[in-house]
Amino acid sequence: MPRTGRRPGPTTSRDAILEAARRQFAEAGYELTSIRSIAADAEVDAALVVHFFGSKDKLFRAAVTWPFDPAELVPNILDPGPAGLGERLARMFFTFWDDPVTSRQLLALLRSAMTNENFARLLREFVVTQLFQHVMEVVEGPDRELRAELAAAHLLGIAILRLVLRVEPLASASIDQLVVRVGPTLDSYLLAG
Amino acid sequence: MPRTGRRPGPTTSRDAILEAARRQFAEAGYELTSIRSIAADAEVDAALVVHFFGSKDKLFRAAVTWPFDPAELVPNILDPGPAGLGERLARMFFTFWDDPVTSRQLLALLRSAMTNENFARLLREFVVTQLFQHVMEVVEGPDRELRAELAAAHLLGIAILRLVLRVEPLASASIDQLVVRVGPTLDSYLLAG
Repeated sequence: MPRTGRRPGPTTSRDAILEAARRQFAEAGYELTSIRSIAADAEVDAALVVHFFGSKDKLFRAAVTWPFDPAELVPNILDPGPAGLGERLARMFFTFWDDPVTSRQLLALLRSAMTNENFARLLREFVVTQLFQHVMEVVEGPDRELRAELAAAHLLGIAILRLVLRVEPLASASIDQLVVRVGPTLDSYLLAG
Repeated sequence: MPRTGRRPGPTTSRDAILEAARRQFAEAGYELTSIRSIAADAEVDAALVVHFFGSKDKLFRAAVTWPFDPAELVPNILDPGPAGLGERLARMFFTFWDDPVTSRQLLALLRSAMTNENFARLLREFVVTQLFQHVMEVVEGPDRELRAELAAAHLLGIAILRLVLRVEPLASASIDQLVVRVGPTLDSYLLAG
């Protein structure tokens, strides 16, 4: 079907580039994706991609910008108190992963971090600093950092088996099925000093 | 320093190719590694690599051949009975990851599986079928497959934080520190129906 009407304006092009970037970074990882291939996918000129985002690196960071501000969501997780903390945390992550846009962003980060040291650092900073900085407020006792990282490792491993390797029955399990199993595990790391 | 003595024989060349393949697959993943680059690294002709291994795919499978037979090791894990099962399992994995050769093989698999569906399948088959087929003998009760996969996901996530992302303090924690925390978690998945 031929396109009709006027060309997409700058905002539309920018969104199309971000959309194409998320798709390609998620499918191929950072190294195998180029500004040229993203531009072709978004049906714009590569120069426009550079104009909007400057470089492949900056485009990646824009594309994987987390779609929520942890500072806004964490009160929902922490404020009800320690009881059920792990379940609320697990439910938040599993819900984000079931969202097509969010899961694509996470996949792009994961795939790129596995093969590129810059993005390993990006993911490391993200996981440790952004994601757990607020949760760490309630983690006390010996080895509290190690325990928080083991909780993070568990969520990361589940993301990989569910989204990347698609191991069954884990890939098709409902959020409720997962939360009831994973919540107590997270509690055992985060709350049991 | 110039080489001296006679050329390396076929066995030496084969080992050199496998060694180079493990290094490059681990560092760059499957897609970015070529028979040509491996041959150059091993200081042999690319035709010799094809002669020995046939294709990049077959070379990869040879390179990541797990260095132990699960059927031989699993009795050590299972025979003492359920008490301490998780600790023995965790200690076995952490000990393999601290071995430079084994960890390189695991990294090659992980990195390649994140960006290539064939190797995602390879890792999926490996994790689920080879690694857990024996352990599943002792896992009973509802959701036993899901629980075994959650245990596998936990070990995989720890491998990524420890070996790929090198998140501290997890990356430098001793095996004993990890085992004492992770063992009970694995038990809670594998033994608590």
